[in-house]
Amino acid sequence: MKLNNLTYGIVGLGIMGGSFAKAIRQNILSQNGSTGKIYACNRSTACLSSAMAEGVTDKVFTSDSVSQMLPDCDVVFICLYPHATLDFLKEHKNEFKSGAIVTDISGVKGIFEKQLPAILREDVDFIIGHPMAGGEKEGYANSKASFFVEHNYILCPIESNREENLQTMRDLITAMGFTRITETTCDIHDYKIGFTSQLCHVIACSLVNSAENEEITAFGGGSFEDLTRIAMINAPLWAELFVSNKEKLSEHINQFRACLDAFDNAIKESDTEMLEALLSLSREKRLRMGAIRTSVKSKDNSSSSIEKNSSF
Amino acid sequence: MKLNNLTYGIVGLGIMGGSFAKAIRQNILSQNGSTGKIYACNRSTACLSSAMAEGVTDKVFTSDSVSQMLPDCDVVFICLYPHATLDFLKEHKNEFKSGAIVTDISGVKGIFEKQLPAILREDVDFIIGHPMAGGEKEGYANSKASFFVEHNYILCPIESNREENLQTMRDLITAMGFTRITETTCDIHDYKIGFTSQLCHVIACSLVNSAENEEITAFGGGSFEDLTRIAMINAPLWAELFVSNKEKLSEHINQFRACLDAFDNAIKESDTEMLEALLSLSREKRLRMGAIRTSVKSKDNSSSSIEKNSSF
Repeated sequence: MKLNNLTYGIVGLGIMGGSFAKAIRQNILSQNGSTGKIYACNRSTACLSSAMAEGVTDKVFTSDSVSQMLPDCDVVFICLYPHATLDFLKEHKNEFKSGAIVTDISGVKGIFEKQLPAILREDVDFIIGHPMAGGEKEGYANSKASFFVEHNYILCPIESNREENLQTMRDLITAMGFTRITETTCDIHDYKIGFTSQLCHVIACSLVNSAENEEITAFGGGSFEDLTRIAMINAPLWAELFVSNKEKLSEHINQFRACLDAFDNAIKESDTEMLEALLSLSREKRLRMGAIRTSVKSKDNSSSSIEKNSSF
Repeated sequence: MKLNNLTYGIVGLGIMGGSFAKAIRQNILSQNGSTGKIYACNRSTACLSSAMAEGVTDKVFTSDSVSQMLPDCDVVFICLYPHATLDFLKEHKNEFKSGAIVTDISGVKGIFEKQLPAILREDVDFIIGHPMAGGEKEGYANSKASFFVEHNYILCPIESNREENLQTMRDLITAMGFTRITETTCDIHDYKIGFTSQLCHVIACSLVNSAENEEITAFGGGSFEDLTRIAMINAPLWAELFVSNKEKLSEHINQFRACLDAFDNAIKESDTEMLEALLSLSREKRLRMGAIRTSVKSKDNSSSSIEKNSSF
């Protein structure tokens, strides 16, 4: 499949869906001889009007008319919340084009692996994905073609995926500007993301909630600000992510609480020696972790690299 | 007292002591007609040679010769760890110039309020202070005159302080480039700093220590990186700070743990409604806290402002 001759369907035109559309328009469909199209559907229509006015989309649909969009799409990005994505797949199962690639952006993957077999048609290839891009800002107005540069895209291939479709997906991800692709299992994805993303959000929000009043940071609070920037959170989305990954997330919270308790006990007992040991461990470990992340980044400087990750 | 005619003594020429010396040299002693001097002492001598070579100091001393420095100094900055500062005051009590202002930079203040009456001479005015500037980088090599711009200096006046000396200290702080001065009690200082600084460091280090291995952030970890940058910590200094403020810090840890447990319970029980409520609280509260901090900053844009803070 030539990427610039495909018809792309975006379901949900927020910051992610909008950035997909803009990156495809700018990086893929601007090539000479492109016959590809971008269709988008969204519940509310303001973003659809903007996307048409900006020339980002060729045709737009609402929730009521999405059934007319799906049969034409070679690749469909479902950019909805996790359970809404599964509901959409169930409801529109019979409307996808035969041979289509369908993919999602959800931050939890285990529920997909479990539920997909009962939902999917054999002639529609669902590729489980998680573009690791986001931020405090939401909505189509904040989307941009360059959003994905320097970001990682995680794919969780399942047995039913056809290799040629996975390759199309990889080519597409690279063309959209992602600088790294990681391929792993749903289980490993949920374990690692449960730590690096979900646990961090739980901690940041707990810290904000524990502030006795809003003036407590008035003396200056650079550390507090850095630790809690991600607490300006989309509550319904993250509540769903936390519950969908609750076993793994609870395990991480337990481990974190044990480490917190070790500090608390040493502080209460004025055990300076123990505290120095715990703090030295943090310092050395964090320095090594920073070095690992830097080496991953610099390796991927010029073009996207694909790495398989099969270890916890 | 005219700031540009005073003799300044810096005890401990690290990033803080070095930045004091450079800011005084550049902002105060470069004025026409200045007769002031900067003396510095340090245990190791490499930084002393640099400071002399760079023209930052007029004369330098080691631990052995500091007794010759102190009798000449009108203002002494003791830039050592908290207990080392108290020990220095005890050991050199009789060497300070009569009428001198002596001040510290320690991140805990309660131990000073408690111990100072037994240590101080009546004719030496100790002003308890905490310049809110710092970072991962340490040592004289990382010091700079502009280090304090956009930063807050906390003063904790005690009964014995003379108003004229407090005013000299405020003038000096402003002249060194600090953009805000907060005056409060030692008790309030330790409570608020225990939250915004110490608790944040405990959390960041606990999070790093709870990482199962150093590759767990390999998928991408912007949130983890933001939350743990401060875990690259000076272990002996922070162990001392934690223990010196253990009652207040433990109280903050307990409150934080309760908020963490609220999330954990809601997650385990798949209580989406409760999670949305907790997350919405975090979001709204953090947005308001950001607005407070921004308004404090913008108020202080052009010159330093002094504010009294007497509430917890």
